[in-house]
Amino acid sequence: MPTISDRGNLMPESPIRKLVPYAEAAKKKGRKVFHLNIGQPDIETPQIALDAIKNINFKVIEYSHSAGIESYRKGLAEYYNKLNLGVSFEDILITTGGSEALLFAFNSCLNAGDEVIIPEPFYANYNGFATTAGVKVIPVTSSIETRFSLPPIAEFEKLITPKTKAILICNPSNPTGYLYSKEELETLKNIVIKHNLYLIADEVYREFCYDGKTHYSVFNLTGIEEHAIVIDSVSKRYSMCGARIGAFISKNKKLVAIAMKYAQARLSPPTFGQIAGEAALKTPQSYFDNVIAEYVERRNIVIEGLNAIEGVKCPNPGGAFYAVAELPIDNAEVFCQWLLEEFEYNNQTVMLAPAAGFYATKGLGTKEVRIAYVLNKEALKEALVCLKQALLVYEGSSIRKKEVQSKA
Amino acid sequence: MPTISDRGNLMPESPIRKLVPYAEAAKKKGRKVFHLNIGQPDIETPQIALDAIKNINFKVIEYSHSAGIESYRKGLAEYYNKLNLGVSFEDILITTGGSEALLFAFNSCLNAGDEVIIPEPFYANYNGFATTAGVKVIPVTSSIETRFSLPPIAEFEKLITPKTKAILICNPSNPTGYLYSKEELETLKNIVIKHNLYLIADEVYREFCYDGKTHYSVFNLTGIEEHAIVIDSVSKRYSMCGARIGAFISKNKKLVAIAMKYAQARLSPPTFGQIAGEAALKTPQSYFDNVIAEYVERRNIVIEGLNAIEGVKCPNPGGAFYAVAELPIDNAEVFCQWLLEEFEYNNQTVMLAPAAGFYATKGLGTKEVRIAYVLNKEALKEALVCLKQALLVYEGSSIRKKEVQSKA
Repeated sequence: MPTISDRGNLMPESPIRKLVPYAEAAKKKGRKVFHLNIGQPDIETPQIALDAIKNINFKVIEYSHSAGIESYRKGLAEYYNKLNLGVSFEDILITTGGSEALLFAFNSCLNAGDEVIIPEPFYANYNGFATTAGVKVIPVTSSIETRFSLPPIAEFEKLITPKTKAILICNPSNPTGYLYSKEELETLKNIVIKHNLYLIADEVYREFCYDGKTHYSVFNLTGIEEHAIVIDSVSKRYSMCGARIGAFISKNKKLVAIAMKYAQARLSPPTFGQIAGEAALKTPQSYFDNVIAEYVERRNIVIEGLNAIEGVKCPNPGGAFYAVAELPIDNAEVFCQWLLEEFEYNNQTVMLAPAAGFYATKGLGTKEVRIAYVLNKEALKEALVCLKQALLVYEGSSIRKKEVQSKA
Repeated sequence: MPTISDRGNLMPESPIRKLVPYAEAAKKKGRKVFHLNIGQPDIETPQIALDAIKNINFKVIEYSHSAGIESYRKGLAEYYNKLNLGVSFEDILITTGGSEALLFAFNSCLNAGDEVIIPEPFYANYNGFATTAGVKVIPVTSSIETRFSLPPIAEFEKLITPKTKAILICNPSNPTGYLYSKEELETLKNIVIKHNLYLIADEVYREFCYDGKTHYSVFNLTGIEEHAIVIDSVSKRYSMCGARIGAFISKNKKLVAIAMKYAQARLSPPTFGQIAGEAALKTPQSYFDNVIAEYVERRNIVIEGLNAIEGVKCPNPGGAFYAVAELPIDNAEVFCQWLLEEFEYNNQTVMLAPAAGFYATKGLGTKEVRIAYVLNKEALKEALVCLKQALLVYEGSSIRKKEVQSKA
């Protein structure tokens, strides 16, 4: 057969999805699996978005404009402007999910071989997009000891080379849930101005900020209009991951014109998803209030529950619906697979995402897991009981109980 | 500001869409523009697909499986097998349009700097995908003189280098409408086996074959299972371009596993579009019979009409809904812009796609245009009258009439 491309071979497998076959096998054995591994919320999509789809009234499902449906772009600009982000509809390209927006950003800003600095742990698929675009990810390590806050400026500056073209952050962060402060954003602003870099901010979890904290966007920073790019998505905001609608947004007009060429090549973003996205702009505030209240309760259950387990450490995240926890185990990859392959407690088990896949530095995060608190409160409580039991019997656990061990 | 990437600057503008601002300006002047420039059919989407969307009954629009909804993949396999293509659902990855499928193919099969041979003129966005993937397009020229049939094997072999990894065809062809014969496919098979290449076939116009001809797929060829990749899409088959649903299909299991990593990185194809696509599989044969009959009539009007104009040459295409015509003009780019900016006949004008953008060899196709016969018959007739009038007054036309000239 003809050879596979080197880059195809290098393309990483999703650390979130690679345990899926083990989960499927567990379910075939009749076991209930609590999915804390993937950010697929159980929250209902706003009815107004679903109704818009059910009420479509056209005869031909046509291509939209390559930049997206204009009325949707205008509505989206209005939404951003309610958040004081100062966005014009011409700054917005509607994309096929945040994924495509990030590919547009990488391709438009960086050449193959150029470098993007990303605080780790980071959303694992950034590796996939970087590999696709031939871009080198340079991690700057944030630590569970400092709640995954922004590493000091000196750590960034150590990493900057002539190949560095951009810094990419996710705010609030997937996987850590960390919400960057205004001061941290200002720090990043200073770095990108000093070194003439792009600042790409994945802000898809913008709405999910807790404990009275508010989101500070890169578009709230002044003086870096030519540097800042926001990656957005309707997936989490309206719990409609399957719509595959995102946005590439920049006030740098030249950059938008370049990204538009990528948009034209693929013709248009999905029409149905755009219709749902446009309708969702009218989602009442009460929807978000309820969702946020729900996530705060879930987060509290998870964070308190985790920290109550001997040897488990988990900082309280300020946003998104993820947390990274350190477990008292030898190796999270082995543990997560074991949970699915061998463990059960009342015929239940838990699926977690090993955190090593969210680090670019080899050897980091090996005892950490990412937990997505996207299940209802009862399920989360049951899952925590299950996880605790697992830690009591898992061979590589430092809190393993001898008496349990002998029964296992 | 930070620099734009070289590849971003190199990214081609769509030759189909770059005249759009001129068309918009013409419309603002109150002029009717006949859009023969883009493959957006006016044919109605099958009602069964629209109904499936209107009848959705879920509370959360979730991610689907990265490979696509399993029942849809199975249904699609059945559809291919009715065409005797011997496809299993595991050979299929559902993609966001044929566009994404082609990117998966380029990324999985070719490294940056590798070469793909494509008969020209070819679908212009192949250039965009090649630029995105850093792949070099090596054109092998087919000619209007030989009705755009496959160039001789010797022409391909002249172009093969150690960097050549694939041949890409579009069958039936956008932009020429040429339908490759079984013999031409066998020729390609021999080349790809001899030189161990991939054979990527964009077969999205499969259903559109005329005059009793039938489509011969690369999957009908035996012995190149490891080489052949089919790019598919629902866009044209069911006139639902906006659904953005396509497929990457190969019987090469290793290759599918590699492409799957790209699919996982972007999480999933659009859920709504997949629902429409799955429902559309039940479209009755009568729908296609009517559509084909309609396109044959349209094609006949266009081809006869074009060839009846002095100095115009247009081979009769066997499939798709495009034709490439040579016009008696100095330069098609200039002419097409002039049509929109300056010309009108009864306050109407025509938008055509200059064919030079479909050639990779500089200087070819400068007198040719691509015509998409996606309008109803009356509109096509009016558009042809308009085009003829334009050729009689356009300064760079060799059939320009002196008396008209003096009035112009």
